[in-house]
Amino acid sequence: MEALRNPNEANSSPLTPLGFLERAATVYGDSPSLVYNHLTYTWSDTFRRCLRLASSISGLGIGKGDVVSVLAPNIPAIYELHFAAPMTGAVINTINTRLDARTVSILLRHSESKLVFVDYQLTRLIQEAVSMLPDGCAHPKRVLIADDGSPLLRTDHFVNTYEGMVESGDPGFDWVRPESDWDPLTLNYTSGTTSSPKGVVHSHRGTFIVAVDSLLEWGVPKQPVCLWTLPMFHANGWSYVWGMAAVGATNVCLRKFDASTIYTAIHNHNVTHMCGAPVVLNMLSKGEPLGRTVHIMTAGAPPPAGVLLRTESLGFDVTHGYGLTETGGLVVACSWKRQWNRLPATERARLKARQGVRTIGMTAVDVVDPESGVSVTRDGLTQGEIVLRGGCVMLGYLKDPESTAKCIRNRWFYTGDVGVMHPDGYLEIKDRSKDVIISGGENLSSVEVESVLYLHPAVNEAAVVGRPDEFWGETPCAFVSLKDDGGKPLPSAEEIMEFCKGKLPGYMVPKSVVMKEELPKTSTGKIQKYVLREIAKNMGFAVKSRI
Amino acid sequence: MEALRNPNEANSSPLTPLGFLERAATVYGDSPSLVYNHLTYTWSDTFRRCLRLASSISGLGIGKGDVVSVLAPNIPAIYELHFAAPMTGAVINTINTRLDARTVSILLRHSESKLVFVDYQLTRLIQEAVSMLPDGCAHPKRVLIADDGSPLLRTDHFVNTYEGMVESGDPGFDWVRPESDWDPLTLNYTSGTTSSPKGVVHSHRGTFIVAVDSLLEWGVPKQPVCLWTLPMFHANGWSYVWGMAAVGATNVCLRKFDASTIYTAIHNHNVTHMCGAPVVLNMLSKGEPLGRTVHIMTAGAPPPAGVLLRTESLGFDVTHGYGLTETGGLVVACSWKRQWNRLPATERARLKARQGVRTIGMTAVDVVDPESGVSVTRDGLTQGEIVLRGGCVMLGYLKDPESTAKCIRNRWFYTGDVGVMHPDGYLEIKDRSKDVIISGGENLSSVEVESVLYLHPAVNEAAVVGRPDEFWGETPCAFVSLKDDGGKPLPSAEEIMEFCKGKLPGYMVPKSVVMKEELPKTSTGKIQKYVLREIAKNMGFAVKSRI
Repeated sequence: MEALRNPNEANSSPLTPLGFLERAATVYGDSPSLVYNHLTYTWSDTFRRCLRLASSISGLGIGKGDVVSVLAPNIPAIYELHFAAPMTGAVINTINTRLDARTVSILLRHSESKLVFVDYQLTRLIQEAVSMLPDGCAHPKRVLIADDGSPLLRTDHFVNTYEGMVESGDPGFDWVRPESDWDPLTLNYTSGTTSSPKGVVHSHRGTFIVAVDSLLEWGVPKQPVCLWTLPMFHANGWSYVWGMAAVGATNVCLRKFDASTIYTAIHNHNVTHMCGAPVVLNMLSKGEPLGRTVHIMTAGAPPPAGVLLRTESLGFDVTHGYGLTETGGLVVACSWKRQWNRLPATERARLKARQGVRTIGMTAVDVVDPESGVSVTRDGLTQGEIVLRGGCVMLGYLKDPESTAKCIRNRWFYTGDVGVMHPDGYLEIKDRSKDVIISGGENLSSVEVESVLYLHPAVNEAAVVGRPDEFWGETPCAFVSLKDDGGKPLPSAEEIMEFCKGKLPGYMVPKSVVMKEELPKTSTGKIQKYVLREIAKNMGFAVKSRI
Repeated sequence: MEALRNPNEANSSPLTPLGFLERAATVYGDSPSLVYNHLTYTWSDTFRRCLRLASSISGLGIGKGDVVSVLAPNIPAIYELHFAAPMTGAVINTINTRLDARTVSILLRHSESKLVFVDYQLTRLIQEAVSMLPDGCAHPKRVLIADDGSPLLRTDHFVNTYEGMVESGDPGFDWVRPESDWDPLTLNYTSGTTSSPKGVVHSHRGTFIVAVDSLLEWGVPKQPVCLWTLPMFHANGWSYVWGMAAVGATNVCLRKFDASTIYTAIHNHNVTHMCGAPVVLNMLSKGEPLGRTVHIMTAGAPPPAGVLLRTESLGFDVTHGYGLTETGGLVVACSWKRQWNRLPATERARLKARQGVRTIGMTAVDVVDPESGVSVTRDGLTQGEIVLRGGCVMLGYLKDPESTAKCIRNRWFYTGDVGVMHPDGYLEIKDRSKDVIISGGENLSSVEVESVLYLHPAVNEAAVVGRPDEFWGETPCAFVSLKDDGGKPLPSAEEIMEFCKGKLPGYMVPKSVVMKEELPKTSTGKIQKYVLREIAKNMGFAVKSRI
């Protein structure tokens, strides 16, 4: 038995999601792969186009381990590049299109990107970013992605156009497979509030695992219709860019969207699946009933009960998951129990707001005391750090062994997120580590306060941070934006506080409420708590902040 | 980038299907896991029972790398042992219950099995097998699996009963995880016609991959109801024993079955999924319409068109797959294209009889010239050997490096099966290597002749082998069993031959037809062609075997 405990020639071929495309071309060759405006490609088109493109990328001298960046919204090119770029052996790096030139410049330098594909609407951003590269730093080659709607463009800074590369490439290109499970496939910079960028590197193996796992967790059938409301640059669309090829999906691309665009696309294309942060659910919750089921996966923050109930009543079947850029996709999901369907709506919403249990592709998930590493009591109350173990955890941060070592230790990946473990084995995030408010020695979860604020019918958005307090150290300070309810009188700060009393322990009721037109957000739509924390700090000490 | 090309503490935890159980207990804890006669367990029962059992197995001194055998039909115990035995670090070895004592004895000796779990109906078989072990060869410990229907049993040859071990075990047992992806998990002996047994060993990684892959290929949703018409001892139920835990299925166990038992179970338990060789489809094809869809996965031989059409018309949705004990489950499947639904029924049946394309978990599948290793022309005509590459290919044959090296070479696993590649990239098996009939220098596929014989309304079973011929070298000789059609006159051999003419090229029409009550079969239900080949040989040379 011992003699066989080794890989052999036939079973050690590295796991990779790239092979999904070749198979899709065989099985779903005549079926649509990508739909965008008036354009439709089939899976055999997409396979051929990716081979041609890979051949041309390779012809530019790009190969094994080189970084190829993409700066584009959810158009067919960014989808294709998720296959075509790594089919040359390169590492694909999708850049958040909402970043400023300075940050893009820092990422290009840090990644040593050799080639950047740029959407025609982002040419100014890339030129500015490149011009900000320090002297002596090689400029990446640039390729222009035009569009059926794009105007006549100056191409003098570009080595080629995207379609030019597709056309001139060889469809017989012999694509480069990884040599090992651990060959890098993706580089994704996490949007953080720190100045030094963290480049998360994932392997072919890890991406294969999370892609397959995410299909199973969501129960995605063959040939779904996926509406791309989640940016593909965001952790590679939670790995579904590859997953959708595995099941021969129709990928409906959208350059930008609002509620009306989404509803139109859902009806025109018979959309079955879509992903998005709770903000997308919020957008949808004001629509008309669908008349059928559309599956929506949400993550990034727990969906507020009100939003959840409204969207579900319209026909959306919401799955709530949790993952990080460092896990390449969702690794925890609130797997639904049939018996929960019998519970009252608000109870169902409360259960669905929990992050849930590890997916089957993960080895282990736990909530531990960050000091001792010991599991917290499974009481739904004791807070600890969420830790993860499994094949899809990143290889590490690019050129940053220190940060890597800080979060990968004791055989765990330490997420930095604070959560509790419920007695039934479902975990729930209580806060991102930095968002814990400590008031009178009590750890106070800003998420819990926010979830109560969201119950107020006039509240549109809510965020709670700590405000320095002479007596308590900190007190919860709420920032809220209100709904424009057509002339109805809006509640005062006092009324909002009054509303929270009785729904929260005294120490958790916000001691200050600040009304704002809109809350500040990151480029990925997360509320920028650090901005609010600054504001709260500058508000000075609260007076009479007794319970 | 190069510095990160390595596994780390958090992402290198070995892939294993054993973790599916723990998760099922959390997510599906209150839902049924196993149903058998009047017995129903939930997933939390099953997890607890497996931990207790593993603790007791461990207490018998069983651990890392030891072989634990099971001799049982599809009862809850064999399902549980697929988790409990390897949870001690042991390798699970399920033995075909239809083998004779001599063969079982050979397998026990070859595997050096330390412990055997035996169903109460098979106690004589095991005692005889053990008594046939040569002197000096350690006897494995035996555990008796009783049943609610079992009589009072003598237990003097047994160390314990199954339920005794469950009851005395510790539910807090700390189960043993694999140390590496490549740790062995299963040992399955292939039923072959050779005297030396081939013990196929699979790793935890390979089994994880095929289990997850097989769920995706079949599109198994969460909480299906699986009727166990496929023996779990047969390549671990094509990996679905573990897969069903991943999706929280209800596993309906059957000690033995016929058409009526199956139909009763389907209706009583709302069965959604089942597996079986075409013989099971054949059994079902005489039933009443279901009134709903039951998904059935078939493999082992291409389903004959008539059987396929009849079962599908009753409400069975048939998926046709292909795999070998050496791949741990199905690795090729006839992935269905939507546009095929518009084709006439016989054309649909012809397409579905093809084995198909690699599953997404496989790296590559091809049909090659066995001498040169070069891919055959994709014309649906040129025959070659089917070769496979992917993570679920076996580690090798136990104690048989020669046989292992013979089939694992050039980065492929050589299946020994002969097939063609169609222009659309779907492969079709033409024959097991040895079943090719060479007549007048033409390679002739016995499967093709058989598929025509099955079209005859009176034919129940058909098998075609080569019969020595003075002039042609070999000619096709058909063995058929006929249906008892209540007094209708049965066709003569001449009428059968006449029927084949015009449906087959002249050289493929059987030159001899032998009627038999029943065709000889292996313990797994495959027709024993080698027996028929012997008979054909002894028939001597055919006279006037011209076309």
